[in-house]
Amino acid sequence: MAQKPSIPKGTRDFSTQEMARRNYIFDTIREVFRLYGFNPIETPSMENLSTLMGKYGEEGDKLLFKILNSGDYLAKANGEHLDARDSVKLTSSISEKGLRYDLTVPFARYVVQHRGELQMPFKRYQIQPVWRADRPQRGRYREFYQCDADVVGSTSLINEIELIKLIDDVFTRLRVPVTIKLNNRKVLAGIAEVIGAPDKMMDITVAIDKIDKIGLEKVNEELLERGLSRTGVEKLTPILKIDGPIIERLDQLGGILAESEIGTLGVKELREVIAGVERLGLNAELELDVSLARGLNYYTGTIIEVKARGVEMGSITGGGRYDNLTGVFGMPGLSGVGISFGADRIYDVLNTLNLYPEDTLQSTRVMLANLGDEEASLSMQLLKTARAEGVAAEIYPDQTKLQKQMKWANERNIPFVAIVGEQELADGTITIKDMATGRQETVPQAEFLSHLK
Amino acid sequence: MAQKPSIPKGTRDFSTQEMARRNYIFDTIREVFRLYGFNPIETPSMENLSTLMGKYGEEGDKLLFKILNSGDYLAKANGEHLDARDSVKLTSSISEKGLRYDLTVPFARYVVQHRGELQMPFKRYQIQPVWRADRPQRGRYREFYQCDADVVGSTSLINEIELIKLIDDVFTRLRVPVTIKLNNRKVLAGIAEVIGAPDKMMDITVAIDKIDKIGLEKVNEELLERGLSRTGVEKLTPILKIDGPIIERLDQLGGILAESEIGTLGVKELREVIAGVERLGLNAELELDVSLARGLNYYTGTIIEVKARGVEMGSITGGGRYDNLTGVFGMPGLSGVGISFGADRIYDVLNTLNLYPEDTLQSTRVMLANLGDEEASLSMQLLKTARAEGVAAEIYPDQTKLQKQMKWANERNIPFVAIVGEQELADGTITIKDMATGRQETVPQAEFLSHLK
Repeated sequence: MAQKPSIPKGTRDFSTQEMARRNYIFDTIREVFRLYGFNPIETPSMENLSTLMGKYGEEGDKLLFKILNSGDYLAKANGEHLDARDSVKLTSSISEKGLRYDLTVPFARYVVQHRGELQMPFKRYQIQPVWRADRPQRGRYREFYQCDADVVGSTSLINEIELIKLIDDVFTRLRVPVTIKLNNRKVLAGIAEVIGAPDKMMDITVAIDKIDKIGLEKVNEELLERGLSRTGVEKLTPILKIDGPIIERLDQLGGILAESEIGTLGVKELREVIAGVERLGLNAELELDVSLARGLNYYTGTIIEVKARGVEMGSITGGGRYDNLTGVFGMPGLSGVGISFGADRIYDVLNTLNLYPEDTLQSTRVMLANLGDEEASLSMQLLKTARAEGVAAEIYPDQTKLQKQMKWANERNIPFVAIVGEQELADGTITIKDMATGRQETVPQAEFLSHLK
Repeated sequence: MAQKPSIPKGTRDFSTQEMARRNYIFDTIREVFRLYGFNPIETPSMENLSTLMGKYGEEGDKLLFKILNSGDYLAKANGEHLDARDSVKLTSSISEKGLRYDLTVPFARYVVQHRGELQMPFKRYQIQPVWRADRPQRGRYREFYQCDADVVGSTSLINEIELIKLIDDVFTRLRVPVTIKLNNRKVLAGIAEVIGAPDKMMDITVAIDKIDKIGLEKVNEELLERGLSRTGVEKLTPILKIDGPIIERLDQLGGILAESEIGTLGVKELREVIAGVERLGLNAELELDVSLARGLNYYTGTIIEVKARGVEMGSITGGGRYDNLTGVFGMPGLSGVGISFGADRIYDVLNTLNLYPEDTLQSTRVMLANLGDEEASLSMQLLKTARAEGVAAEIYPDQTKLQKQMKWANERNIPFVAIVGEQELADGTITIKDMATGRQETVPQAEFLSHLK
């Protein structure tokens, strides 16, 4: 019985043209990763749930795609949870594996598992899909690609400088104007200290992270709700209003945080990183944003976020320094810093701004028409020559009207059609039609390739 | 609490060196696909189970990885099946999606779903992982890559000729000596006819498919068990013993099948395909193998299988003609032909024969040492120049002993180390060490790049 086919919501098919555009983005990112000395690794799509669970918060656990155990999975299911119809509790007894949710936790797992083979500092990049059972909406998919680069085993701020410069190189090549926002977790800790609420850093951060969306007044309301004192809120306001060029902002922030040891260290780190990238020069606009937190769960130093200028779109790249990512897998004290390009959002940005180079859709250079057995047989010899020279070439497989064959070539954006008919077969010639200009010329078969310019 | 990390059985991490080797294989296949006019598409990792179930036989249904529905999946579960602890029946009410099992069924689904946008004949390639809950063993993984090329919407045998030549090109480039085995489903139907058991084609095929593994005698036993008459078995034996060069085999087969219309058609198709590829010339050995069936579920014409010569390994590539792949999705009568490269087995073959070009592990060209703040700052400017010229370059991030930095470069196969120390900083020079020869020279910084040959 025929079914009307469809795909799961939040997932996508990519056609040839979409693939060409996506590959342009992936190839650009991959090439810059390579230039910066990052080497590729890949991890399995599935990880043990014990690796994934508890790493992304309670909400994250719910968003993991879980794989049903194979075979008679109910045989080992917990009967009590089954009878109680308790989905949450039952899961662990009928599912042992899940699809990876990001590339960071699998990377941490990889580092610990392969610690004996890795040269520290270890630099790797990883370009693979991740899966999240999020509610699909514009720009949010259930299967999407991340492109991560990380250095672990080095505390040097040179890594931060390199990664920011790398981000700048990628978006320069992609011709996307971006703002790179910076912050430092230690600055956030310092702020909490100087406003007299060192134990409320998390609450403060969660609240001020929303300032772009809901405004200062609503943020202050939330801070009061979260138990911050009115004095604390009043002390915080000037910090959130810091303004001017980046160096001035740093100076102001340094003054405000002078009393806090950790805050002062955060400002010093930011200063060093910013000086480093400015010495190298950036095309991107650099911004200090003390409200930037990016979840904060695991960042301990520099925090990085990139936004496209002139396009309404969330963060298209983000990252930061983490000091204990591998601790949960039994390898404490390993510091690292990494960034993650959101390929699908970058794809949406490039589509919106129409930033693809004209030759992105690289297709077949020449189609040979198929006008008869003998003609096709000779054409296939010419195909062989073309391919040996690296020229993508194909023959129309069926013997149909030439017009239909031409239409097919045209619809596929093939720039040249070459015809060996009865006459050409007898003469040793070939007729080449330039599909853009309509010009046609008949040349010796031996000169075939040189006429495809 | 620290956990000892591991990955699910049958899955693999790929380190940098493994990635380099695998990318060499994928890039080779992709480039040949491109030269033959195939364009890429991608489909989601997850498909609706309604798309996948029933397409791979009962055994295949069991080997599908099924994804647990999100949220309170037990709320919609069938209570009867739950109480009866019936895993098989319960599945459909707690799981709607599965991971793709191959690239063929998703491709058929894609063609039907996008029929309005596609130019027929439609040629596509697809390189993506697939998942099977098979029992893991040597050379069999639960996550592995397939590399498929298909043409649909054309019945021309030129497609078969092109695909066989394409296979030959791929393995020529990879330097793997192969045998390409050919058969035709119509020949199998013809054989069943002439031995007087036209209704037993399936049984005959399943049995003779095993001839390489269990030998003629055991095959005959199985045929008798499957209800074939003794006369039938006797008539079959000379067919299975057909011998000699490929054209002679074709002649013998043509004689034996002369009485069967479908068998004769099968021989004619084989003749045309073989003549076509021999005109173009192959490096591969071509073989006619009447016992070749490859599952047979959906092949209707040519059947292709590739084995590496001199390596104990199953089929490394396979394919064939199918006439009704899209019928199940409501689009009958669309003929196609395709091949699938088994990238993971090809990887195992290349590893066994050690066939990788020396420069496969393309890594960083030069590491700059890090000997102090000012030295590093200047080195980072040199890095910038190198990268702008397309030269992969990196700096050792930490200021540690030069010896340690050198060791790191060496372990990562970086061919050059460049050093800016106090002296070089003062002189405007840089010292470059060739890690292979140990030779060292000090040159002006402006000439840095030209010394990395």
